Amino acid sequence: MSAVRCQISISLDGFAAGPEQSPENPIGIGGMRLHEWALATRAWRSQHGQEGGEDGIDSEIVRRSTEGVGSYVMGRRMFGGGEGEWDLGWRGWWGEEPPFRVPVFVLTHHPREPLVMEGGTTFTFVTDGIESALAQAREAAGGLDVSVAGGASAIRQFLAAGLLDELTLHIAPVLLGSGERLLEDVGDPELVPVEAVGSPLATHVTYRVR
Amino acid sequence: MSAVRCQISISLDGFAAGPEQSPENPIGIGGMRLHEWALATRAWRSQHGQEGGEDGIDSEIVRRSTEGVGSYVMGRRMFGGGEGEWDLGWRGWWGEEPPFRVPVFVLTHHPREPLVMEGGTTFTFVTDGIESALAQAREAAGGLDVSVAGGASAIRQFLAAGLLDELTLHIAPVLLGSGERLLEDVGDPELVPVEAVGSPLATHVTYRVR
Repeated sequence: MSAVRCQISISLDGFAAGPEQSPENPIGIGGMRLHEWALATRAWRSQHGQEGGEDGIDSEIVRRSTEGVGSYVMGRRMFGGGEGEWDLGWRGWWGEEPPFRVPVFVLTHHPREPLVMEGGTTFTFVTDGIESALAQAREAAGGLDVSVAGGASAIRQFLAAGLLDELTLHIAPVLLGSGERLLEDVGDPELVPVEAVGSPLATHVTYRVR
Repeated sequence: MSAVRCQISISLDGFAAGPEQSPENPIGIGGMRLHEWALATRAWRSQHGQEGGEDGIDSEIVRRSTEGVGSYVMGRRMFGGGEGEWDLGWRGWWGEEPPFRVPVFVLTHHPREPLVMEGGTTFTFVTDGIESALAQAREAAGGLDVSVAGGASAIRQFLAAGLLDELTLHIAPVLLGSGERLLEDVGDPELVPVEAVGSPLATHVTYRVR
């Protein structure tokens, strides 16, 4: 069966977002520092329609993060905006041609018709919980993997429910001091490191979750 | 000049010790899970006068952790015992032949004569702070490196004071959920990963501290 994967950047002190998160700044103060390693890469730039960028291990990691992914599940805040804005026709953070290019299932309490974006991305809004979202994502993935795209809250739910098969952490060499912790209130899953590679900008560790 | 190094095991959620630390159990409940990767190795067993053990990357990491180290600085709790016990002739956790085999400087508020142990280890008790301890340790190291042996509190003090040159974290694939955090209240030092290697039991990341 296809695997349920997740990859996310965290600070060395364990935060997936900085303090004072808001609908306007969902990654909080300093949160962008967690993603600098990725933004510089050729793979990230290519996925977002830009030229240039750095080659090397970080770019390879970005490239692999989407390889073999047939669908995504994401939290409402990662889709973007407060739910109140949805009535105003808000179509998320990601522009008219989001980088996902496959079906995306958004966890929410606010029913909404699916959005068909350019470039292959569809956003389907799921109001009956993570297991329903996962079942729909599996079906849509057509035998490829399902990736839990984030944010931290969605990943915590999947981890606590024992629904993740593989977790890749991109550990940025940054101390945020406060913010939203990733690995809190997720129980004590059995994690087995299967790969660790690094660059001067981040350390990438993949765990098999049992 | 010789470098000031530090290496310590932490959980994936950032704890250097489990909850309910006490003089009798200074690493707290579950804290031993952070050290299982090391205890199984040939290098650790050899350093502690035992035969056998696993070869491989974890053993190599243990071996390197003492290589080139001319002296240690350690906190009082890592030396062991409550200070009240010292009047009773307490000689620390480490037995009559401690594994350090070089001068060790113990941070304390309780003056005490040095202890000369078997096998090359001496414990010298320093009551006037980390900078004094470091100066004495540098002198004693004779051009080799100084290692800050722990515990977490001593390492936090060195990191916050900008006195560490190199920090190696052994990240155990374990979530403790609570306990003593390593990287809290240490400011925002500039950390540059210089090596990341791993086994199924731990991920070892070395940072240069600027």
